[in-house]
Amino acid sequence: MDEIESLVRLNLSGMVGSALLRRLREHFDLATLHRRSRRDLERVPGIGPLTSRAILDAGDPRREIDLAARRRIEILPVTGADYPPALRSLYDHPIVLYRRGATVDADALSIGIVGSRECTDYGRRQAGRFGQELARLRVTVVSGLARGTDTAAHRGALQAPEGRTIAFLGSGLLRIYPPENSRLLDQICDRGAAFSEFPLESAPETANFPRRNRLISGLSLGVLVVEAAERSGALITADWALEQGRDVFCLPGSIESPMSRGCHRLIKQGAKLVEEPADILEEIPAFASLVEPAVALTPLERAVARRLTNRPVTAESLVLSTRLPMSCVERALDQLAAKGAAVRDAGGLYLTAGRS
Amino acid sequence: MDEIESLVRLNLSGMVGSALLRRLREHFDLATLHRRSRRDLERVPGIGPLTSRAILDAGDPRREIDLAARRRIEILPVTGADYPPALRSLYDHPIVLYRRGATVDADALSIGIVGSRECTDYGRRQAGRFGQELARLRVTVVSGLARGTDTAAHRGALQAPEGRTIAFLGSGLLRIYPPENSRLLDQICDRGAAFSEFPLESAPETANFPRRNRLISGLSLGVLVVEAAERSGALITADWALEQGRDVFCLPGSIESPMSRGCHRLIKQGAKLVEEPADILEEIPAFASLVEPAVALTPLERAVARRLTNRPVTAESLVLSTRLPMSCVERALDQLAAKGAAVRDAGGLYLTAGRS
Repeated sequence: MDEIESLVRLNLSGMVGSALLRRLREHFDLATLHRRSRRDLERVPGIGPLTSRAILDAGDPRREIDLAARRRIEILPVTGADYPPALRSLYDHPIVLYRRGATVDADALSIGIVGSRECTDYGRRQAGRFGQELARLRVTVVSGLARGTDTAAHRGALQAPEGRTIAFLGSGLLRIYPPENSRLLDQICDRGAAFSEFPLESAPETANFPRRNRLISGLSLGVLVVEAAERSGALITADWALEQGRDVFCLPGSIESPMSRGCHRLIKQGAKLVEEPADILEEIPAFASLVEPAVALTPLERAVARRLTNRPVTAESLVLSTRLPMSCVERALDQLAAKGAAVRDAGGLYLTAGRS
Repeated sequence: MDEIESLVRLNLSGMVGSALLRRLREHFDLATLHRRSRRDLERVPGIGPLTSRAILDAGDPRREIDLAARRRIEILPVTGADYPPALRSLYDHPIVLYRRGATVDADALSIGIVGSRECTDYGRRQAGRFGQELARLRVTVVSGLARGTDTAAHRGALQAPEGRTIAFLGSGLLRIYPPENSRLLDQICDRGAAFSEFPLESAPETANFPRRNRLISGLSLGVLVVEAAERSGALITADWALEQGRDVFCLPGSIESPMSRGCHRLIKQGAKLVEEPADILEEIPAFASLVEPAVALTPLERAVARRLTNRPVTAESLVLSTRLPMSCVERALDQLAAKGAAVRDAGGLYLTAGRS
């Protein structure tokens, strides 16, 4: 069984995440894991009878892989080059991701927009407005395809010319939920992508959604909470964002609206109050370029170029200061060098061209 | 001319504040100042022809003093015992204050409520609610008698049984503005007081109101901004509050409402977002007692008692930690001692009784 088959199989078991995968690899060759006995498996700390049975009883990965291929869905193993670097860096990343549509390097400049399914007209209108304005500014809008806020945010992004948007589903990519958003998902995949960590035909189980939320925040440089009641799932996404070191932004609202209570609580706890897209862009170093007059650089190149000064820095320090993945930083540096906007010094460090 | 006549006279000139009064005292005996020549006065640094003429041409203070007495208005010179200590400590305090009604020690526990004259229904409703709830919790509500927010805040305070409220006017106390609030001012003075630094018959000049605002914040331990458009006078009060070291609290609102823009700007700059009166009380040490179950102490006594521990402290440090004036702290300490809740040690320091 090859690597991708092994990982799809473990993922089908529904019991193996990044931590358990690491321990399994320490004990076994994944290619032959499915032929081990339960007793073998249970020698690994943390594997009990439920887990061992789930691993051994997991269905045939070939069927899942063939089905994905027929429906033009890619399967990205965590070990593959296409797996989004921002997600791989999460402690609890999925061991495989299903993707429909395509992602591009510029999607590294992304913001999650989340909020309640039962949002008010105000929330719906503002989710749409922020989705559209951020997308117009070349920010990829990440959300969860749910009714209410998510739907408005995706639709807003699609209204911007060339606006990009990405949806993370809490069900399998062949079990679109809510079903009425099937057409919307087609449009999203034309201009971005849909991701799920759940096997293709997984039902939208309640327990899936809080887990799904960690990917929305994980792929994003920051999360905007548009509206959230006291126990809204959007607050879970905000908690994930804080845990992942992402900025949390909140729309204020009337204190008479229960749907703004969660936002107000987050602002009291330190989240940034947002009135305009610029309030978000200003806060995140990688976006600083987007609020400046355009120059002949791509957004990614500008994000990197802005951190260059006449003092040489390492690519690693640019990864830290831009919060972009190394692959993006390296590509941007190559392009900046080609355009004469960056210089690589004798020691392999980078500095801005044109100043000395 | 006696002290109060001299100060009323200087105040009638409209040109002498606390700083110039200090310099005048260094050069002259106030009792004979009105008989000096312009040349004499202009020898004082900062006094030019406009000021010297205004000082010498100021009207007869006896007429003003008699008029005040007939209308049951007290004149409080800055040197008098009745002048509010919180205002005397302001850098730019009025040299005399006119007062109608009465203030009590408990008014030291006060909150300013300010906002736009053209407030929305939301602002009016919430100003009334906060006025009433704070007054019910024995907080004195300070505002400016203006249309809109101020009116709602005063009315709310009056709706609480025994609720106290204080109004600072931007006109003379015999020139009530806006005129339709004349009846409201009667009610305020039955349950609190109205103050003005302007001579009794002064018109409500535009320039008076920003100055007046420093007294609203100055008398208060914190200021709640209910609504404020981009250039609202309420923002001036908030600026004064920050300059005076008072906490600034803001109600959030819809980002689609221009009347909430000022509040959102202040929250971005660090003002506290407020949904409930408790959000205000929690933030200010002197109020902490008000959110606790009642014991057999007055609010002022509780405010001081809470800062007492089994380590002796000076009355000065209690002034700092409670942010109450020394006179209130001293009286509360006497009462706490009489009730057996505080002890004065041999060195004259205070500590809590019952613990050692």
